[in-house]
Amino acid sequence: MSDPHGARADLVCDVVVVGGGVAGLSVAWRTARQGMSVVVVDPAPGTGATHASAGMLAPVSEVTYTEEPLLRLGLASLAAWPGFRAELDDESGVEVDHRREGTLEIAYSSDDMAYFDRLAAFEETLGLRVERLTGRECRALEPMLSPAVRGGLLARDDAWINPRRLVRALLAAVQRWDGEILYDRATEIVPLGVGVGGGVGVGGGVGVRLGSGEFLSAGHVVVAAGSWSPSLLPGLPVRPVKGQILRLRGPQGFLTRCVRGLVHGSPVYLVPRGDGEITLGATVEELAFDARVTAGGVYELLRDARELVPGISELELAETTVGFRPGTPDNLPLIGPAGPPGVLAATGHHRAGVLLAPVTAEAVVALVTGAGAPEVVKSCDPGRFSR
Amino acid sequence: MSDPHGARADLVCDVVVVGGGVAGLSVAWRTARQGMSVVVVDPAPGTGATHASAGMLAPVSEVTYTEEPLLRLGLASLAAWPGFRAELDDESGVEVDHRREGTLEIAYSSDDMAYFDRLAAFEETLGLRVERLTGRECRALEPMLSPAVRGGLLARDDAWINPRRLVRALLAAVQRWDGEILYDRATEIVPLGVGVGGGVGVGGGVGVRLGSGEFLSAGHVVVAAGSWSPSLLPGLPVRPVKGQILRLRGPQGFLTRCVRGLVHGSPVYLVPRGDGEITLGATVEELAFDARVTAGGVYELLRDARELVPGISELELAETTVGFRPGTPDNLPLIGPAGPPGVLAATGHHRAGVLLAPVTAEAVVALVTGAGAPEVVKSCDPGRFSR
Repeated sequence: MSDPHGARADLVCDVVVVGGGVAGLSVAWRTARQGMSVVVVDPAPGTGATHASAGMLAPVSEVTYTEEPLLRLGLASLAAWPGFRAELDDESGVEVDHRREGTLEIAYSSDDMAYFDRLAAFEETLGLRVERLTGRECRALEPMLSPAVRGGLLARDDAWINPRRLVRALLAAVQRWDGEILYDRATEIVPLGVGVGGGVGVGGGVGVRLGSGEFLSAGHVVVAAGSWSPSLLPGLPVRPVKGQILRLRGPQGFLTRCVRGLVHGSPVYLVPRGDGEITLGATVEELAFDARVTAGGVYELLRDARELVPGISELELAETTVGFRPGTPDNLPLIGPAGPPGVLAATGHHRAGVLLAPVTAEAVVALVTGAGAPEVVKSCDPGRFSR
Repeated sequence: MSDPHGARADLVCDVVVVGGGVAGLSVAWRTARQGMSVVVVDPAPGTGATHASAGMLAPVSEVTYTEEPLLRLGLASLAAWPGFRAELDDESGVEVDHRREGTLEIAYSSDDMAYFDRLAAFEETLGLRVERLTGRECRALEPMLSPAVRGGLLARDDAWINPRRLVRALLAAVQRWDGEILYDRATEIVPLGVGVGGGVGVGGGVGVRLGSGEFLSAGHVVVAAGSWSPSLLPGLPVRPVKGQILRLRGPQGFLTRCVRGLVHGSPVYLVPRGDGEITLGATVEELAFDARVTAGGVYELLRDARELVPGISELELAETTVGFRPGTPDNLPLIGPAGPPGVLAATGHHRAGVLLAPVTAEAVVALVTGAGAPEVVKSCDPGRFSR
């Protein structure tokens, strides 16, 4: 069989997912579960933004005044998380350390508290559950907090998971449904015209060329390559938003809740795991693909976190990591048709990739099965900026 | 040939050096140069305190009021460094990045400057060269210094080298003189009585048992195992003094001198290399062998260094390391007979191992060749605490 694109059609499947982070693997798992044949292409799955991520499922405490569509999307995905996680546990055998004790938002100064008071009032107008706490009440919940903290809010519905375990679970679940992981780099997306390529891609279809020279043909290609997505879909409005993030190692139970602080206007969070690890983040830097951990980034994170929880000084600084969040002009992800026919984007999740994984995967399933995008993701149409 | 210690006398040599840090390797090189057969025993040479070290040759700026014998020792060793380095360059082919631009001691506050003023007066009574500088004069020498720095001193005679290159150079020089490196752990020192062991150790000698089970016999054993020396010589008054130290990576010429600062009484140093690396240190912690890099240790180093040189914020934080300086009760090293006959200590150098390498090696050469300890190291007799 000849191929007009000069490569063997070595592999034919229903869906190729480019990118093995939390978005791509979730899409792969949920489409494979529908009985579709799925191939994930990634030279190193789970080593991008997902590896750096803190894994917060925190639509409420992430909310800002201008981002109500993102809040609605986040709440829908948060609601889907327990079912998503239960099926993932069952099918992968990997437990993702899903914790639901809520987020404690801590104000260091009275100015910081004034910000939270306004935020709480806004959240209440949206019907969200949020409780105002005094400094004393905050410390009763988390005794390691500094006596200096001014007060806070408790967002009881927020939760979090361990994103590195999530990657292991999703890889296992994809393979459980006979999805294939190709440890390779996608170099090009190739539209396949109607009827071109012999039996391949009846009604069109789309090809993906790999770094190895291999060529994949599929009914759909889902680009979930995070900040690197524009290399396959030129013009896609995604940019890398650098984040530096630390991992501390302490005794179990040092913190029991996810603590998000505002320290003289500067945000910082501490996310505890069951094994005593604490993820401390994160800088937000518009520095393109600058992968350096910097003295200033680490300094500012430690400074602000120490103001909230002085006892972290004694904990091991076990890891410093840089990740690149895929940012978009309006902070909403890109989920839906993009580029040549048959190609979908599932990227641009910025700080919310883990939270939005279930709703992203369900939207892609609906799109590839022809059911159409669910109402809640219509705000995420990749074409919205050109209209 | 039977061996009363139940092990083969596999290897017989003049000198066994236990420990492949800067002290042990310098001793090995200088004794091998005398025509002696030398074996160095270390599972991983150069990975102890030397690996963490900043490599300062700074007896003047290290001086404190109570430590004049240490100052004399340091000045003697500093004077020996140029010749030591020239021969090492020749014999190893490895350049150690020896820099002699002097140390700039920077006072952040006026209290810090008052301390330096008193120190300068003391140093002048000792006949040392030290110049008082205004803040403006300091910044003229090092433009990256903060406009807030109060003033400082210039110790023109201080120098520094790259300790990791020094290890590579010494390993090459030892092997150049047919010294052998055994990548193994010494587990026991075994006195060999007069005549015991056949031809081994005429007039006694001493054995070293290795983790592999191998047994070495030698005329002299030099214990240069840093903080781990008491495991071979129980009761030796050496303790680990934990230090955390950072490596930054910046543009070449970011700093040109060794900068030692006092920031509200808290000491910090920045040591630039020819390749743009800056060693930033160091904590001094009495925490035994606690090998954890801590959030508080890294935070305090970055905080104080940023006060002096704000621009480090933009530099890469390339490495965090913990080392254990071998401390002694009086901060002077232990150089001379210790334990069974034929055993010498060459340890306890605390913060000054690199500086004191030449004088330590020359003293050991004098002792093993029977010339007796040079006057300047007599204050380092390991027996001084029991008299």
